[in-house]
Amino acid sequence: MAGFLCDTFFYAVCVLFIGASILVRLKGFQKLTSIEEALHLLLKSLKLEPLKTVNVPLAEALNRVLAENIVAEEDLPRFDRSAVDGYAVRAEDTFGASQFKPKILRRVAGGEIKNGEAKQVWTGNPLPRNANAVVMLEHVKLLKDEIEVWVAVAPGENVSRKGEDVTKGEVAVKAGTRLKPHHLGLIAALGKSQVPVYKKPKVAILATGSELVEVGKTPGEDQVFEVNRLVIASMCRELDAQPLDLGIAKDDINDISEKIKLGLKKADMVVTTGGTSVGVSDLVPSAINSLGKPGVIVHGVAMRPAMPTALAVINNKPIIVLSGNPVAAMFGFEVFARPLILKMLRVEHEFRPIVKARLTRRTTTALGRKTFVRVRVFQRKDEVYAEPISARGSGIISTMTEANGYVIVPENREGLEEGETVLVHLFDTVEAAGENV
Amino acid sequence: MAGFLCDTFFYAVCVLFIGASILVRLKGFQKLTSIEEALHLLLKSLKLEPLKTVNVPLAEALNRVLAENIVAEEDLPRFDRSAVDGYAVRAEDTFGASQFKPKILRRVAGGEIKNGEAKQVWTGNPLPRNANAVVMLEHVKLLKDEIEVWVAVAPGENVSRKGEDVTKGEVAVKAGTRLKPHHLGLIAALGKSQVPVYKKPKVAILATGSELVEVGKTPGEDQVFEVNRLVIASMCRELDAQPLDLGIAKDDINDISEKIKLGLKKADMVVTTGGTSVGVSDLVPSAINSLGKPGVIVHGVAMRPAMPTALAVINNKPIIVLSGNPVAAMFGFEVFARPLILKMLRVEHEFRPIVKARLTRRTTTALGRKTFVRVRVFQRKDEVYAEPISARGSGIISTMTEANGYVIVPENREGLEEGETVLVHLFDTVEAAGENV
Repeated sequence: MAGFLCDTFFYAVCVLFIGASILVRLKGFQKLTSIEEALHLLLKSLKLEPLKTVNVPLAEALNRVLAENIVAEEDLPRFDRSAVDGYAVRAEDTFGASQFKPKILRRVAGGEIKNGEAKQVWTGNPLPRNANAVVMLEHVKLLKDEIEVWVAVAPGENVSRKGEDVTKGEVAVKAGTRLKPHHLGLIAALGKSQVPVYKKPKVAILATGSELVEVGKTPGEDQVFEVNRLVIASMCRELDAQPLDLGIAKDDINDISEKIKLGLKKADMVVTTGGTSVGVSDLVPSAINSLGKPGVIVHGVAMRPAMPTALAVINNKPIIVLSGNPVAAMFGFEVFARPLILKMLRVEHEFRPIVKARLTRRTTTALGRKTFVRVRVFQRKDEVYAEPISARGSGIISTMTEANGYVIVPENREGLEEGETVLVHLFDTVEAAGENV
Repeated sequence: MAGFLCDTFFYAVCVLFIGASILVRLKGFQKLTSIEEALHLLLKSLKLEPLKTVNVPLAEALNRVLAENIVAEEDLPRFDRSAVDGYAVRAEDTFGASQFKPKILRRVAGGEIKNGEAKQVWTGNPLPRNANAVVMLEHVKLLKDEIEVWVAVAPGENVSRKGEDVTKGEVAVKAGTRLKPHHLGLIAALGKSQVPVYKKPKVAILATGSELVEVGKTPGEDQVFEVNRLVIASMCRELDAQPLDLGIAKDDINDISEKIKLGLKKADMVVTTGGTSVGVSDLVPSAINSLGKPGVIVHGVAMRPAMPTALAVINNKPIIVLSGNPVAAMFGFEVFARPLILKMLRVEHEFRPIVKARLTRRTTTALGRKTFVRVRVFQRKDEVYAEPISARGSGIISTMTEANGYVIVPENREGLEEGETVLVHLFDTVEAAGENV
């Protein structure tokens, strides 16, 4: 009973609080910018130079981004070839053949067959002249100088035609493609052993905060382990960007600005974590503004988590200023750094896999913010479900390991209903139970 | 008109052909084994030894597989700490506060507060004793020795509680987890700088075929570039397995068996391509059987493509014998080698992302085979579509670069209907047009 009263009381407080909060928030951030507007402002202030390209052996090209179209210099296959082990024939000679009424053909060698003849071929062998089909070995009985053909083949059957895969002059794989095993296979089939890829964009990563201690050291009473550089570096690696470690800066404007300056010199982009909120410790934006123009372009984004994210440009290089909270840092990176890195790499279509799922329970979100709700997607029989992970604050990193995806709730909604169908952006694998087919 | 007659004629031939084919196929492969039965037989003939484990720095652990549970040795957070920049308070002291009727609290320093007092804290700082909430900095006005509090906070508000993330003794990340950025972050937050992962399973890869030439060399008249080793090696790398190259063997039983023997000595598993069909060139199964017992366990699987796949065991090591056709080799690897590698790594749930999609057109498949239909998935507004890629034979590698996923059609169906909802297993990214939210 006390609990109930208590809850009701807090509910009333909360309702009042929302109104107050909107009033007061304006003091902190002049205004919250929408994600779309923030990205637009950032890109408008930048002239992204193309990354340099480098030739790498195909065996080292997995997950790199192709920098130039791969054009076929020859037809693939280079000749009509057999797709099976068997006998090259003229299809007409087999019409009407059956196991009970086989057709008899003469076995010949050489580069040409005539009517009534057949030549043995293995998979991949060129067809002899005049042949237009191949009878599979298991549909043939071998006689002394002849074969019995038990099944009819149609012209073109069991034949890979010259240029059927790729024709000469055709673009086989487009620039901007993230190279997967099947792309590498096609490029190799065209005879190319090297491939031009973009150099990895360099991302310099700085953590700020006097309370931070390196993982592996013994923390003091008030200290916490610094985890954001590792997480951001790993997210960079997943995108084929090269992380550079700028270390940890104390809450000191000179320390911070010196390290960012170094990052701008060495890298294509700088990412910082911590020191972005509106307090006295709001040092990173000030440090950036001390380094040049235009400096900070956006500070405060209408999203949750990661509201205190800031975006800046110095010397035509972007700086993404993330929250010190690990979850907020991950979402800030996801929303701003990830598309920027993909843009540098000229990758056009690379989204997280999206699945439709049914929400297992109601979840509430704040009006006026695009909210990223962490969910755990799982499959039971044919139905896919998304279980919201209780949002216990953006410092709680285990909410990210419990989740395998997120749902984006638009600014004009106060939550999602139980049973509602949502689109989940997956960042990890999905557990399937029952039929997976 | 001639075209029409011709088509009708071929249709009749085809209908006859299906019946004949079922009769005759039995000659080639004693029987076709279902995928499930084939995997079962393989695993029954094997006693997979656990892979050795190795400690690696967290920065090198991305995508590796965790070999032991990570157990928290301390609570995370280690102490009640502020989740924001602001003032630590006793929540009761703020009840009823508003911008128009603020509450006044005394500012204090030190490790403890009393009723009516507040202490400044930054994000991550431990809470002073007796404090149970934090008022955000932007909801406070600073006076000389006091603060004006403009909003009420509930007990626990803006506080990360000791152990809220992970409690001491709890399993934070389970053995068998593929380590993603968020897992690395959580492990780092627990203060661990090294992590035990499984050694990469070694997969020795051999291509067979006298017609094959290395990519980069100039091919002779009848030669084709060997692409399967590169594709299979890349698929291994995606799974955190380590490919070993056994080169190309001629269609010679001694050459093949010597190279497989070397692979069995150096690796945990051998994958071969080519020389698996029923002809005279059916050398790989014979070569394997010459090396020991039990040898070839399955030859011929009721699937399409990749029907000629064989599975073998020698010296308690698996050998996956794939077709020489690149597409068939990829699907054979997907269905047999991939789950085996994941089993070696003790990874339980790692499926390709699966999306429901609407088929854009009818596609036909063969009864009695599990058919893997390559499709291109794309998104238009809220609807996800799957376009079947014309199956122009399993040698046509560009069908894999046009596709980004596959649909599995069960043995008892003759095809899929236009507009039918299918489950697509994605192996590449999806192009989205319109709203992505």
